[in-house]
Amino acid sequence: MKVMVLGGDGYLGWPTAMHFSAKGHTVLAVDNYQRRQIALETDSEALIATPTLDERAQIFHEKTGKTVQVKIGDCADMLFLNSVVADFQPDTIIHYAEQPSAPYSMKGFHEAQMTLKNNLGVTFNVIWSVLQNCPDCHIVKLGTMGEYGTPNIDIEEGWIDIEHNGRKQKFLYPRQAGSLYHTTKVLDTDLLWFYVRTHGLRVTDLMQGPVYGLSTEESDLSDQLLPNFHYDDIFGTVVNRFLVQAIAGVPLTVYGKGGQTRGYLNLIDTLQCVELAAKSPADTGELRVLNQFTEQFTVNELAERVHRVGQSMGLNVQIKNIDNPRKEMEEHYYNAKHHALIDMGLEPHYMTDEVLAAMVEKILKYKDRIETRKIMPRVSWS
Amino acid sequence: MKVMVLGGDGYLGWPTAMHFSAKGHTVLAVDNYQRRQIALETDSEALIATPTLDERAQIFHEKTGKTVQVKIGDCADMLFLNSVVADFQPDTIIHYAEQPSAPYSMKGFHEAQMTLKNNLGVTFNVIWSVLQNCPDCHIVKLGTMGEYGTPNIDIEEGWIDIEHNGRKQKFLYPRQAGSLYHTTKVLDTDLLWFYVRTHGLRVTDLMQGPVYGLSTEESDLSDQLLPNFHYDDIFGTVVNRFLVQAIAGVPLTVYGKGGQTRGYLNLIDTLQCVELAAKSPADTGELRVLNQFTEQFTVNELAERVHRVGQSMGLNVQIKNIDNPRKEMEEHYYNAKHHALIDMGLEPHYMTDEVLAAMVEKILKYKDRIETRKIMPRVSWS
Repeated sequence: MKVMVLGGDGYLGWPTAMHFSAKGHTVLAVDNYQRRQIALETDSEALIATPTLDERAQIFHEKTGKTVQVKIGDCADMLFLNSVVADFQPDTIIHYAEQPSAPYSMKGFHEAQMTLKNNLGVTFNVIWSVLQNCPDCHIVKLGTMGEYGTPNIDIEEGWIDIEHNGRKQKFLYPRQAGSLYHTTKVLDTDLLWFYVRTHGLRVTDLMQGPVYGLSTEESDLSDQLLPNFHYDDIFGTVVNRFLVQAIAGVPLTVYGKGGQTRGYLNLIDTLQCVELAAKSPADTGELRVLNQFTEQFTVNELAERVHRVGQSMGLNVQIKNIDNPRKEMEEHYYNAKHHALIDMGLEPHYMTDEVLAAMVEKILKYKDRIETRKIMPRVSWS
Repeated sequence: MKVMVLGGDGYLGWPTAMHFSAKGHTVLAVDNYQRRQIALETDSEALIATPTLDERAQIFHEKTGKTVQVKIGDCADMLFLNSVVADFQPDTIIHYAEQPSAPYSMKGFHEAQMTLKNNLGVTFNVIWSVLQNCPDCHIVKLGTMGEYGTPNIDIEEGWIDIEHNGRKQKFLYPRQAGSLYHTTKVLDTDLLWFYVRTHGLRVTDLMQGPVYGLSTEESDLSDQLLPNFHYDDIFGTVVNRFLVQAIAGVPLTVYGKGGQTRGYLNLIDTLQCVELAAKSPADTGELRVLNQFTEQFTVNELAERVHRVGQSMGLNVQIKNIDNPRKEMEEHYYNAKHHALIDMGLEPHYMTDEVLAAMVEKILKYKDRIETRKIMPRVSWS
């Protein structure tokens, strides 16, 4: 299978590229280092120094004999993307190439504009480069569970049957997201769904929860092959921030009441999910939506886990509720379905104490690189 | 009230600008002549020659003593829009400034890209120019009934209460539109709803059906003040096309089976609706959605009306079903609520035979300008 990974330099992109290559597929990773640039601009650089994509591809080749092709360029530029797709003729495009930070998207006009233009623009170009060059290509699009928000009813997998005044209709599950970044993913879904039904594209839209983890079969070969590890308020997810805070002796910063519930998954399971999706593509004219997470818990529960694991490793871990910089419900109903990927063969790796301890061990090696000024929220929703 | 009309050169924009000015409001019409440019490029120029905005404002002033201020520029350019909003400090922004043609948006990559970038981009700039300069300003946004598509259940006014597995939640009514143009309006709604709930904007989103009519109190003062009358396949709505076909002796071109049902309204009622919305603004943090049409019927029923009126006026009117260039259901359930504007005081002007006859009379004066090559569909959805 010929697989293009857009956003191949990202936290998910690079492990995905290695994973598909290790499995024997022909892989082209595409990126424009936009996340690195934003990290530089916002004082949010990753904990562990990351070689360039070309360097990482070379190290990966030395370790495994396998190849990841690399192309540096901007997928929001149709001239670039279209020529790459025309040359490579992918069977599958894995589209991660979006500005992924919610706080960044809420910072101000320019950050919001860049997020909207980039994310919608890349999705639009992916659609059209497939239509023009390889209409049978399967687009695997990274969405987010955040598209659904936190409704007071069960969250279904992408679609919902509505009965109203005695009649029935199946709709895309109504979405209302909590940041502009998450809203761009809602718009992506709307756009993909339109072109799926009018032009017969085949699309899998992965509604993914927050991912954690540093270890994959390939990234374990060398620290230089590790995924980017962000612990800052811009790119760091809550799991990463808590682990780094535990190590740095800073209280775990729970935003507000901490009753925010989300569905989480291990990076290893992201790789499984994307591979499962790629191996059994959506049909022509199908928008297949898969809820991609393995277990759900509150921020408070997460803080307690990190607290327990940290204490057991001799760290002095405190928990502190701070003012919530976001506008979100801090206590709410949350029951999100996630059967489809299990049915397709996903074997979950849960967030055990051992998994958290292994992350702590890895991060401890880089303890002296932690800069505590990056940990506290620097962007507010209001 | 200080009213900015974005897209002030358009079919709705110009009559709206005159209407608010005639009612004593301070009016600034903004446009970049984009529709004129597209009309030129696609051989779709309006039937009746239209003076520039500056010329029309001058003629309007000579006839009434009233003023419409004019500013020519691109609202997709934030530098331009922001400075205009900062200077004018509007109480109400009426946002019509979008590429309004469904067929144009389906023509190819460049047309689709332009539609997406322009429409989303202008809406985004409107949001941010209000946030930065006049956060209390009421945004009256022109959406379309086409956002809803043709679901098999009743169409509510913007919102729907869903009961699911014994729990309840109110959502934006799920939308799925039939063209990229209509889809950009769905994305606009998503975007507005996000900024309404996080930043407390006040927005009225008008889900408008196809509008017909050439006559308003102000446009009746001079043919030079008429709204643009498009009868081409790009900008002409079905009512206009049928009337021109009846006059030109070309069979009325019903797309497919002709069972497509839509909600229609008279241009006079658009002016009433927009004025009613502007006079009682949405609350801070409210996205108010109003379904804006007065009566619904099928394309076949419309063809029969034009046939009847044309025959009575001595025209030889034929009806012809042609292959549908669009992808849409040609027979479907359609029951769309439209109570809110009536409750606010809308007094409907229905599509009577007299109204159609008056339109025919007006168009007959320009019969020799009709170019039949513009009447048949030149863009296909497939």
